[in-house]
Amino acid sequence: MKAVGARGVRGTNVAADTQEQTTMKSGLNFLVAARQCEIGELEQLARTSELVSGIGRLIHALQKERGISNVFLGSNGTRFDDMRLQQAAECAEIELQVRAHFDALDTDSSQVRNGARLFSRIAFVLHALDSLPELRRRIGAQELVPEESTIAFSRLISGLLVVVFEAADSATDPEISRALVALFNFMQGKEFTGQERALGSAAFASGKTDNVHQQQWLHLIESQERCFQVFSEFADTAALHAWNNSQTGESLAELERLRRTGAMTRAGGKLDANLSQAWFDCCTRRIDAMKNVEEVLAGKLRELCERKIAQARTELRDQQVILEELSRQASSASPDASTHYGPQLERSVLGMVQEQARRLQDMSDELETVRAALNERKIVERAKGLLMATRKLSEEDAYKMLRQTAMSQNRKLVHVAESVLAMSDYL
Amino acid sequence: MKAVGARGVRGTNVAADTQEQTTMKSGLNFLVAARQCEIGELEQLARTSELVSGIGRLIHALQKERGISNVFLGSNGTRFDDMRLQQAAECAEIELQVRAHFDALDTDSSQVRNGARLFSRIAFVLHALDSLPELRRRIGAQELVPEESTIAFSRLISGLLVVVFEAADSATDPEISRALVALFNFMQGKEFTGQERALGSAAFASGKTDNVHQQQWLHLIESQERCFQVFSEFADTAALHAWNNSQTGESLAELERLRRTGAMTRAGGKLDANLSQAWFDCCTRRIDAMKNVEEVLAGKLRELCERKIAQARTELRDQQVILEELSRQASSASPDASTHYGPQLERSVLGMVQEQARRLQDMSDELETVRAALNERKIVERAKGLLMATRKLSEEDAYKMLRQTAMSQNRKLVHVAESVLAMSDYL
Repeated sequence: MKAVGARGVRGTNVAADTQEQTTMKSGLNFLVAARQCEIGELEQLARTSELVSGIGRLIHALQKERGISNVFLGSNGTRFDDMRLQQAAECAEIELQVRAHFDALDTDSSQVRNGARLFSRIAFVLHALDSLPELRRRIGAQELVPEESTIAFSRLISGLLVVVFEAADSATDPEISRALVALFNFMQGKEFTGQERALGSAAFASGKTDNVHQQQWLHLIESQERCFQVFSEFADTAALHAWNNSQTGESLAELERLRRTGAMTRAGGKLDANLSQAWFDCCTRRIDAMKNVEEVLAGKLRELCERKIAQARTELRDQQVILEELSRQASSASPDASTHYGPQLERSVLGMVQEQARRLQDMSDELETVRAALNERKIVERAKGLLMATRKLSEEDAYKMLRQTAMSQNRKLVHVAESVLAMSDYL
Repeated sequence: MKAVGARGVRGTNVAADTQEQTTMKSGLNFLVAARQCEIGELEQLARTSELVSGIGRLIHALQKERGISNVFLGSNGTRFDDMRLQQAAECAEIELQVRAHFDALDTDSSQVRNGARLFSRIAFVLHALDSLPELRRRIGAQELVPEESTIAFSRLISGLLVVVFEAADSATDPEISRALVALFNFMQGKEFTGQERALGSAAFASGKTDNVHQQQWLHLIESQERCFQVFSEFADTAALHAWNNSQTGESLAELERLRRTGAMTRAGGKLDANLSQAWFDCCTRRIDAMKNVEEVLAGKLRELCERKIAQARTELRDQQVILEELSRQASSASPDASTHYGPQLERSVLGMVQEQARRLQDMSDELETVRAALNERKIVERAKGLLMATRKLSEEDAYKMLRQTAMSQNRKLVHVAESVLAMSDYL
């Protein structure tokens, strides 16, 4: 143990005390170290945000490939074969970039916040990416029905979204956390839109639909709306503006008309196979518009990280200047009072310490509020999983059961989900 | 950007692909990295737990010095002078050890989880420790009344407890987190006991009491009970056993009798100054017994960290053996299928990936439950702060207002606190 500057009670050797002080980290050192930690965390968030942007592009390409593959499979291989191969090549290109992002993560140190969960999610994604070529081969050979292809693509995309979720969950800055929560919910909503496109493409292309598919379809519409609701609560004005502008009345009207035809036709009814293309194009325009909004969000996130890092660096520099000035004054003021800065300096130091503690506390409080939105999602997911396991329900039915209880009891969905979890022993 | 093993769609150069693979981190690498992160987090928790034990010892010594100083000041310097100096020397000794723990923290990297808040709290503590010699000089010169002395010591102890709180708040392992929550609440409860000793010592020594002091006294008794309640919810059987054994009926009866005399005598009433020693001894026995329980808790925490680290290391070794076996089989099985392990190996890898993700998810869910207890404290503290600021209430009165609302509405304290925060605009 190093003998670090203890303040003696009586008769302390002042010379020894002063000497010890040079080897010891003072409160001021810790003040600076706290700020440096903040900068380190912000820099990691900036890297994570880049990774999230890349994942967004890969998800977008995979969503397109899933839709094309479904038209291909639903038409017994007569349509979209070239488009499918072209899209697969584009996916592979973007996959390279995302793999490079993963590869650049520092897996050797434990510096990465939330590393255990993040890396474990990435392991799943890499495993799923490794089996993409085989999936594509089987699609090309028409060894799969559209549902099987959809499930495989959707599982990969869902794995990629969970990586984004973990990134949002590990953010330590409330403003960046808000931006990540908005982005994650937007991406998740876009994925439900993509699933709706795939499901609808397969239904129209096959020329028929049934009750199970229609229920799934309606569930996807609802899920989208829930995500965009959370997005709207957390997004900033510019992103909201981009989102509202991206939805023209005309295109929404066409979407709703096709939805009504596809999702609401009486069970067992025939669908016009020629609407497949119109449906696909309509959804693709919607998804492409979403992609633009997503890029606005990702751009804002990048700017936000850069601005926060620059700001924290400036504040650190200012703080260091003050601290140097303080120690200069302290050492010249009274050499035998090396443990004290005098009443005025004392107050400055205490002021800085308290200001920093208060600011970090405020940030932490605000962060809890933002994280509550993420926790709500976790709680609803867990309650859904519990109902699926204990009641042998499908995901849609489990969600519907929660939602109907919430409506009939006039309670928030998350509170119903909490009650379900609390009652797990009785289920 | 490194060209990392993308899986080509068609006609990929297999040789190039294989070569690239050696430079690339696979899903399996990330699986191992996730486990290594877990070990890193556990090792940091072990170091933090050592720091917390040291802080516990320092708090204990400071609590004793606070009580002694109050008897000294309350008796106009006629009593406990030697004991006071002796205790101050003991404090200084332990302070050295705690400073060494702080000093050993790696402030240069951003590796320390929750570093910004932890370091900022330590900065406050170091600042308060630096002004201890001056505080002791003023006590010796009887320049302070007991209340002023109590406030100064209590502020330092409260700063030390906040460091423990941040440590508990940053734990990533739910079992360790439970142990830290139990320990933190026990330490906080012990501190309220210490404040009660100091307040009572001053009251008895001065031979009188008044309404304000009696209200504070009752508030301290309540606060202790709340802390020990949370402790009981989170502590393991051994710690609970130690706690129950530490309280004999006889000593509890004496405590309650003295409390009744001191805290309930009608306002303005005279107190028997001779009871000062009896009160101090009774409380000191109680606090010393608590110190033993605290050491049981700290010992359990240390054991827990060691066991978890050993377990994680064993699991990592097992995992690495399996992974090596897998890659050996994969490379010997079919050299042109370097991207696949064959269906059986494929399932093993997927199984491991899924098992790890599930385990981490379970841990995360359990952690949320434990952290909820910490959040409740934060929410109650914030609501109290809000009431103090907007209604100009003392801390005791703010707490009493929350508690009375909770009782009259038959709701949990934390839910009342949440409502207060939600209504902040109206206050």
